[in-house]
Amino acid sequence: MSLAPARTAEIDAWLGEARAWADRELDRLLPPPGAEPRRVHEALRYAVFGGGKRLRPAIVRLVGAHFGGTEREAALCAAAVECVHTYSLVHDDLPCMDDDDLRRGRPTVHRVFGEAVAVLAGDALLTHAFALVARTGPLAGELVGVMAEAAGAAGMVGGQDLDLEATRGADHVADATEVARIHELKTATLIAASAEMGAIAARARASERIAAQRYGLALGRCFQAVDDILDVTGDAATLGKTPGKDEAAGKATLVAALGLDGAKKRAKELAAEARAAAEGLGAVKGDLAYDLVTHLLQRRA
Amino acid sequence: MSLAPARTAEIDAWLGEARAWADRELDRLLPPPGAEPRRVHEALRYAVFGGGKRLRPAIVRLVGAHFGGTEREAALCAAAVECVHTYSLVHDDLPCMDDDDLRRGRPTVHRVFGEAVAVLAGDALLTHAFALVARTGPLAGELVGVMAEAAGAAGMVGGQDLDLEATRGADHVADATEVARIHELKTATLIAASAEMGAIAARARASERIAAQRYGLALGRCFQAVDDILDVTGDAATLGKTPGKDEAAGKATLVAALGLDGAKKRAKELAAEARAAAEGLGAVKGDLAYDLVTHLLQRRA
Repeated sequence: MSLAPARTAEIDAWLGEARAWADRELDRLLPPPGAEPRRVHEALRYAVFGGGKRLRPAIVRLVGAHFGGTEREAALCAAAVECVHTYSLVHDDLPCMDDDDLRRGRPTVHRVFGEAVAVLAGDALLTHAFALVARTGPLAGELVGVMAEAAGAAGMVGGQDLDLEATRGADHVADATEVARIHELKTATLIAASAEMGAIAARARASERIAAQRYGLALGRCFQAVDDILDVTGDAATLGKTPGKDEAAGKATLVAALGLDGAKKRAKELAAEARAAAEGLGAVKGDLAYDLVTHLLQRRA
Repeated sequence: MSLAPARTAEIDAWLGEARAWADRELDRLLPPPGAEPRRVHEALRYAVFGGGKRLRPAIVRLVGAHFGGTEREAALCAAAVECVHTYSLVHDDLPCMDDDDLRRGRPTVHRVFGEAVAVLAGDALLTHAFALVARTGPLAGELVGVMAEAAGAAGMVGGQDLDLEATRGADHVADATEVARIHELKTATLIAASAEMGAIAARARASERIAAQRYGLALGRCFQAVDDILDVTGDAATLGKTPGKDEAAGKATLVAALGLDGAKKRAKELAAEARAAAEGLGAVKGDLAYDLVTHLLQRRA
């Protein structure tokens, strides 16, 4: 299954527009440049405006629009989930964690601003994410609960812990089940939360919220599987990072667990599951939620 | 101004009861021991159950009771503010920050569990704090907003940044204004938020919420001034840490800025301001909110 070139261009355009929207909203909803404490805010904006795809905001927007939600609440949630995503990158890059010097082709936050400011900028971003969701008023309780569940020990924090454990066991190669668990916790839970928050912000029914959450989870799994494959097959220019980096670092990846062909096969299976989940949302071939899965499977960066 | 011995004993008993209540609620509201990810949760519980005074939960409870709030919502807020407080201690103790080996007489979290787990446990605690407040339902938006404001870059994160700057300037002694600003951001804002959250959880009116916030801020300033004095005058056994530690580390303290006598004079002035703020809450001499100020001024540990 593949997309016609015209459809690929349409989805690219939609993703580009969603990214520009997310960038504008983030700029508006983060403390202004120059705000005190100056170096923390500099570091925070350096991290946020570092060329991310804004996939999570795009998913909030897609699901929000699907259920007829308002732009204002979607924007708050979209900025919030991107803050959570960015905080996790800043903390994961720290010397005591993954010890990464480069992120999207630029020096990581602690390389530019020092470790103390990197820890503080991450803390500030995580906190600001909740401050933004708090502004949704009567929906805040549910939205904060969903986002906190995805970010916390049962979600992203737990995923990073598993990832560190798997990477440090030098003579241990994580199997496909372990890798799937790490992918789910580190990446897919926040994408699932993004979809669910889009649905909640649009006052979707409980059954629709569950369908949105399932769609985000399946899409997130597929997205991360493709990420692992691109680490091996991508080229530095389009990828913005050195290919083979995960492999060299002994990271727990789907390619390490299943080989490249096995990982490609698995990514296709995950894409099929994500398309089925899109159907659970009421989307069919030709609808954005459905075609986006194929688009993400085919991506080159 | 000092308290009669019988009144001191009464307030001690009340604080002891509030501490026991906070400990019970925290035990109930944190993930159970043994929950996955196991080492993050071990570190998290090690940090939380390390012998804290539970002053912030006590303030939530005091103000909540003052405005006739329910125990359930006060408990969620009390546990949440203690999680925020504990997260800040875990991150502030990190080698890249204050590099502390001991906290309340025990090895710090990163000394026991390693730096990566300490960062993650702090992140998990901060996130869990918001998850708890989310459970207050229709009040969650306001409560999360108040807590996030106190914890974020305009509050505790900003205070830690200022503190690091002031401590690192080796030939610079922070003056009383700088120290007051650090105290306000690092300590008093979360105590102010605790008081305000107690008032919000009790559905207090806007003017009452402001009075509660002012009381917490003044009490927090006075509390931190006394902390700086005790670092010099306290003895190791009652204090649970080595006296003179702040001084040796070149920390920005009120004693470094004003001398011991000047700091004592300032603490008394701050206590007078806190009593005036207690009156703003409708409390007079003989009421807990009022007498607590004098009690905290007289404390020895």
